Amino acid sequence: MKQPSPAYSTTLRLRYPNVLGQLNRIISTITNSDGFLGTLSVVSANRNTIVRDVVFQARDVQHGHQVVGVVSALDGVEVLQVSDRTFSMHVGGKIETCSKVPLENQDDLSMAYTPGVARVCAKIHEEPNASFALTLRANTVAVVTDGSAVLGMGNIGPRAAMPVMEGKAALFKVFGGVNAFPICLDTQDTEEIIKACKLLQPTFGGINLEDISSPRCVEIEQRLIDELEIPVFHDDQHGTAVVVLAALTNALKVVDKRIGDIRVTINGAGAAGAAVARLLQSVGVERIVVCDRSGIIYHGRDGNMNVVKQWLAENTNSERLEGSLSDAMNGADVFVGVSVADVLSAEDVKRMAKDAVVFALANPDPEIDPQVAADHARVVATGRSDYPNQINNVLCFPGLFRGVLDVHARLITDRMKIAAAKAIADVIPESGLTNDYIIPSVFDERVAVAVARAVSAAAEVDAAARG
Amino acid sequence: MKQPSPAYSTTLRLRYPNVLGQLNRIISTITNSDGFLGTLSVVSANRNTIVRDVVFQARDVQHGHQVVGVVSALDGVEVLQVSDRTFSMHVGGKIETCSKVPLENQDDLSMAYTPGVARVCAKIHEEPNASFALTLRANTVAVVTDGSAVLGMGNIGPRAAMPVMEGKAALFKVFGGVNAFPICLDTQDTEEIIKACKLLQPTFGGINLEDISSPRCVEIEQRLIDELEIPVFHDDQHGTAVVVLAALTNALKVVDKRIGDIRVTINGAGAAGAAVARLLQSVGVERIVVCDRSGIIYHGRDGNMNVVKQWLAENTNSERLEGSLSDAMNGADVFVGVSVADVLSAEDVKRMAKDAVVFALANPDPEIDPQVAADHARVVATGRSDYPNQINNVLCFPGLFRGVLDVHARLITDRMKIAAAKAIADVIPESGLTNDYIIPSVFDERVAVAVARAVSAAAEVDAAARG
Repeated sequence: MKQPSPAYSTTLRLRYPNVLGQLNRIISTITNSDGFLGTLSVVSANRNTIVRDVVFQARDVQHGHQVVGVVSALDGVEVLQVSDRTFSMHVGGKIETCSKVPLENQDDLSMAYTPGVARVCAKIHEEPNASFALTLRANTVAVVTDGSAVLGMGNIGPRAAMPVMEGKAALFKVFGGVNAFPICLDTQDTEEIIKACKLLQPTFGGINLEDISSPRCVEIEQRLIDELEIPVFHDDQHGTAVVVLAALTNALKVVDKRIGDIRVTINGAGAAGAAVARLLQSVGVERIVVCDRSGIIYHGRDGNMNVVKQWLAENTNSERLEGSLSDAMNGADVFVGVSVADVLSAEDVKRMAKDAVVFALANPDPEIDPQVAADHARVVATGRSDYPNQINNVLCFPGLFRGVLDVHARLITDRMKIAAAKAIADVIPESGLTNDYIIPSVFDERVAVAVARAVSAAAEVDAAARG
Repeated sequence: MKQPSPAYSTTLRLRYPNVLGQLNRIISTITNSDGFLGTLSVVSANRNTIVRDVVFQARDVQHGHQVVGVVSALDGVEVLQVSDRTFSMHVGGKIETCSKVPLENQDDLSMAYTPGVARVCAKIHEEPNASFALTLRANTVAVVTDGSAVLGMGNIGPRAAMPVMEGKAALFKVFGGVNAFPICLDTQDTEEIIKACKLLQPTFGGINLEDISSPRCVEIEQRLIDELEIPVFHDDQHGTAVVVLAALTNALKVVDKRIGDIRVTINGAGAAGAAVARLLQSVGVERIVVCDRSGIIYHGRDGNMNVVKQWLAENTNSERLEGSLSDAMNGADVFVGVSVADVLSAEDVKRMAKDAVVFALANPDPEIDPQVAADHARVVATGRSDYPNQINNVLCFPGLFRGVLDVHARLITDRMKIAAAKAIADVIPESGLTNDYIIPSVFDERVAVAVARAVSAAAEVDAAARG
């Protein structure tokens, strides 16, 4: 049975008689219907009646309606308003643009706008790179999508993708102090997406690609990295790889294994799976097997291939294993799922090596129920906040771009990604690590600061900074 | 001799002996060098020395350096820091993106981001128009340029244009409560600009085109109006036309002439001149003559023509006047300059009809010195803040888009533009009008509110609202 979730929370505005016991009757009605009670605030009250906002969480929309139904059936209780808190939060959009400078009088206007602004324009006209210091490019990234692979929903298009991109933009600012603006493009053509990003580059200091379907996203990212003057980062690939590496780094400390010794099975051969494989290889993992819906990917496999899988076939699975995901789990030390719900069984986990590590990152529902996995694995992590060890890209991208923009980096190199992973991992001192605490909370304020510092330093080493 | 301007203001950080008379010596040195003194603030002080920030305005960069020179030559005065206030204001950019929603705990994240956000995405996927309510499209416009005609600087390109676009975006927010994001495109190809705007449309509720050179801007705007689902407005054309109509409406009250009776001479046959001509015609001005560098534009003229001028040749100057701007000034009641500095002589103004009206709007230097014009004209207006009657587009675009977005208008019709002009004019009651006060201040807070209300109402009449 699913648990009530804040994603399905409702505010009920209720008017009822100002009589002892009424509120308790309402509360028990909600909780008896399996609603999870939130805040209770008084809107107005007089001798006869009280108006109160009551918040509750439901399991889903239908369950929410049920709870509203039983409350409104209560004798003497009037439901004045029902508002879905998730939708209310989205009305009018989640991000805004604000002026950083005062515009209160003629002097302000003469500096920020005409005629003074012309001096700044003239300076940039002489030295185009001055735009990285004297305009919003100094601290602004685009969050670019075509809406082709949004969360678990797939190809819902650019309009419907916007709430995710706005959320991402908000996270950039709140967690990393980076200004981010969502760009949802009305095309799913690879060349048009590349062209649009090129046309937009005078406006931004960097580009975060998001929720573009595989394998197109790999080509799009690589072409943009090659052809643009600003850093480009596909978070679904590299952000995921960074947080997986961070979690793995600490998990291996907990189970006391060395990175060169482990066998890793990855399920999901999209761009994320491939990026995880590449980054793990770059830090010394030698034995990686990647599976997709058709099972293990191996050199010479014919069916269900594409450029990404071809790369995986040629660069992983040196033992040339063939078979199913279950076969790939035999003796694996680490499982990384970047796929879909419920594809891993308890039996599969049982087949793993001693002190197994399971990262079941499918969203919103993991590859295996983490409580089931925990029966046979030592360390279990998911992408969810309601289980221990949440592996979430929010740990990476705000701090990473903070570090990138701080040094005007032109590229985001492997060294910078590895530095980010190490910084995330090192937020937890080794003495503090446990099976259930291998990765810091997304609300741990030390994370973004540490990531930014590490990424800036790595950029200097790689001379990726614009200087 | 030019006056000192806040566009050239400098903050000097000075350390000097804490002795009576020192500050006076510094102040008189600055003012004797024709520097215009601003604020004086103490940074630190002890028994022996004082550190103070002294702000002054200069006429230009060279004059600013001169003033710094004489101050630093003063005995006992140390210049610790010299900062150009206009440049300081631009460091890091002038606008930022902010989250409108709290992201402080897991519940916030579950509603604004995963998993709750998926519910909002699904809703928009079912009903794409819901994106105008549930995303930033509700209240966000793009300020789009290719940097081909920026202020008086011409084709300085998209990177150098950014400070102007950021300033515009800031004005949208501060004056109209509209979120605006600057988009500087790395192309000056008409088709590519159109394509880019089409690709961007799922992201915005409207598009404000800016500083795109004529005549391309006319085609770009018309194509976008025809092909996009969101309102498109080229401010250099229609914003200018609206504020000219507003000022003219009140000027005619002052000189007691009727709109159907006047002769209008426009100098400048770019997109702005043509838009002014069209809007004045739509409210009943019958006799309009437009001039460019080659003189009067008439039906049949061969040299120096383009599509915009062709339209003007066919739709203005019904008397088929030929000749120079001076010829066109004979008996004119109104002059509107949207051209360049110093093209109108005192003699030209003398040739005008009794109670002449002169709008010399070239920026930053008007077509004629307004004090010279005032010798022969009854009402004189410019685009400058340091003379009476400043005609500035800031009076129009924030309120206009506020009104457009409030009713989700699909188009910006002539009725809406005329309503905006009337609303601006009517902010000043007829009894308050004088030769020197025909247009409200750009800081008059009543303006945007009145414009928004009038534009929304006109949109409803024209059924331009999305409903």
